[in-house]
Amino acid sequence: MGKSMSIKPVSDNVIRRLPKYLRKLNEMLDANVRRTSSFVIADVLGLTASQVRQDLNCFGEFGHQGYGYDVSTLKEGIEDILGMNRGFNAIMVGVGNIGHSLADNFCFSDWGVKLIGIFDVDKKLIGTKVNGIEIYDVGTIVDFIAENRVDMAVLCIPKRGAKEMAALLAENGIEAIWNFTNEDLFEPYNQSIVENVHFSDSLLRLSYRLTERNDNK
Amino acid sequence: MGKSMSIKPVSDNVIRRLPKYLRKLNEMLDANVRRTSSFVIADVLGLTASQVRQDLNCFGEFGHQGYGYDVSTLKEGIEDILGMNRGFNAIMVGVGNIGHSLADNFCFSDWGVKLIGIFDVDKKLIGTKVNGIEIYDVGTIVDFIAENRVDMAVLCIPKRGAKEMAALLAENGIEAIWNFTNEDLFEPYNQSIVENVHFSDSLLRLSYRLTERNDNK
Repeated sequence: MGKSMSIKPVSDNVIRRLPKYLRKLNEMLDANVRRTSSFVIADVLGLTASQVRQDLNCFGEFGHQGYGYDVSTLKEGIEDILGMNRGFNAIMVGVGNIGHSLADNFCFSDWGVKLIGIFDVDKKLIGTKVNGIEIYDVGTIVDFIAENRVDMAVLCIPKRGAKEMAALLAENGIEAIWNFTNEDLFEPYNQSIVENVHFSDSLLRLSYRLTERNDNK
Repeated sequence: MGKSMSIKPVSDNVIRRLPKYLRKLNEMLDANVRRTSSFVIADVLGLTASQVRQDLNCFGEFGHQGYGYDVSTLKEGIEDILGMNRGFNAIMVGVGNIGHSLADNFCFSDWGVKLIGIFDVDKKLIGTKVNGIEIYDVGTIVDFIAENRVDMAVLCIPKRGAKEMAALLAENGIEAIWNFTNEDLFEPYNQSIVENVHFSDSLLRLSYRLTERNDNK
């Protein structure tokens, strides 16, 4: 494992499933289950056993013929693949409704990411804390990035400022943006890696599938 | 279009891209752009023109050789495909942090869905409103479903009660669940269609890709 894995490109659909495997493996460990199989994992996740084996084979040999998977080893392997042990630091930019809700409720550290600072323009918020994390003036963000290791930015500002802020962050060496602004930031135009989060995408998939089901009745 | 479309199964990756097309088409209309092409759409979305044509061809003939796409027609076509004109009603179950933030900030009606009621166990909340929508006692949910057209449930209760509530909703005819509980609800075990929302999935994809990039430096 380790560096050699990163050479083989892995399909986005596989990457999409890894967090699901991880959740189930964590539940197994909580329930003191130490050994599992592609059949069991497939069953709880609504996949086929061969799909599970194929997914996990993308990253090398986790399983052993006739034994299955050691839950703890597999979990650590997936955490390693997902970069959860790289000590990534994140800052949040914008602490309105969604930013506040994330800072307050989303457990970044469960996913190997440390939220080390929050930035906003609102003078009333600057100097206060959310969930123990200080809110700084957004005007100091470039200095903060220069003085601290910052790997990711959680972008929660209004849509209209999103592109400009993304460019500023990229210029200052932020390589990954978790984007909640509702402005799609596309990578051909950005030096940073971007994950655009749109709640509506998932609602619309649900709506599509319900429509399809209704029409086929 | 209409009913005939639902017969051809469309890949999940195409469905995933439709909301992105829709966002761009809305922006074009806001900017008074009335005609576009697969090249323009591809460019703003970081896709290839042939991918765009292929995606849109899944649903019939929107484009015209040498003309491209009429923005408004294409937008209406995609809205139709996504079921945005079906008049779907939704209820929310659980109005803690995430539920409250969604009810308050997420514009359901922009996506063709009407949030018609919120349910909770907290006696202090019952009878109050969020964003004009009344909060009812969860004990009255079965009656409410019987008396109103409810197509979807937005599930925002704590993880431990998720499976039980999903089963109750399905028994009472709710066919679609937008699941924010962090309990993966898999469809083989549910009569309802489910969209599981996990913020961590998207953070972990970002972390994976940053790790991959760092290792390839």
